[in-house]
Amino acid sequence: MSAGIAELTPAEIDGLLHEQLVGRIGCHADGHTYVVPVIYAYDGEAVYVASTAGRKVRMMRERPHVCFEVDEYAGRGSWRSVILQGIYEELEGEDAARALRLLAARFPPPADGEPVRRRAESGGEVVCFRIRLVEATGRAVDRGA
Amino acid sequence: MSAGIAELTPAEIDGLLHEQLVGRIGCHADGHTYVVPVIYAYDGEAVYVASTAGRKVRMMRERPHVCFEVDEYAGRGSWRSVILQGIYEELEGEDAARALRLLAARFPPPADGEPVRRRAESGGEVVCFRIRLVEATGRAVDRGA
Repeated sequence: MSAGIAELTPAEIDGLLHEQLVGRIGCHADGHTYVVPVIYAYDGEAVYVASTAGRKVRMMRERPHVCFEVDEYAGRGSWRSVILQGIYEELEGEDAARALRLLAARFPPPADGEPVRRRAESGGEVVCFRIRLVEATGRAVDRGA
Repeated sequence: MSAGIAELTPAEIDGLLHEQLVGRIGCHADGHTYVVPVIYAYDGEAVYVASTAGRKVRMMRERPHVCFEVDEYAGRGSWRSVILQGIYEELEGEDAARALRLLAARFPPPADGEPVRRRAESGGEVVCFRIRLVEATGRAVDRGA
């Protein structure tokens, strides 16, 4: 038995990005690299996130070339992952509204109907942004049985 | 209903790092930020990884200040995550052997008894390394019911 490593096809990369709910943004500024998990939506061209205007937003404003990663662990050391390089773009107006609709569609409506925008995080200004896909690679590692 | 964000205590950070099996390394070199998932072990002082000598190892050799992240999604937008800053240190001899034992202890023995070292990834030189913990922060986001 040895591990088989396969490159994912563009369709498989697209599929994993549609399936997953949590991804991680990698950004770098002021000599620090930072990896932070986010809930995201994906439309084939970009991933969409609503977040408070904290450290990661400050870092991406400073250096908009970022990395985005999703993975799915299948047990016994087998998994699939996608790593993409993209460009951080802040959204406003109708673009931000569309991002919030894409995100809302990933969750069942809350019992009290409070909009996603308000629930995005407690306190602080909410920033909607996308990471526009520039390049993506995907790998599957199958340890087999 | 609104999200509650809490800082994890040092004991909770330690607990999440012990519980999780997959983490993500964030590294940066030559103007690129890279986030890559890894299976790891943790002993309270560092996370331990065995990997082929690919892109992430080249990047960490060049710039050993890296980020390491774990998260646990609990559904309905609630989660816990730990983000740590650490130093990449390559391991050899008894240090590498100990890292492989820590990793092996996280998996049941394979049916054919092939050692973890061989199974780490197909092809290429296997590098054992640790990311020595310098600073860690953890957050819990509870969307509540």
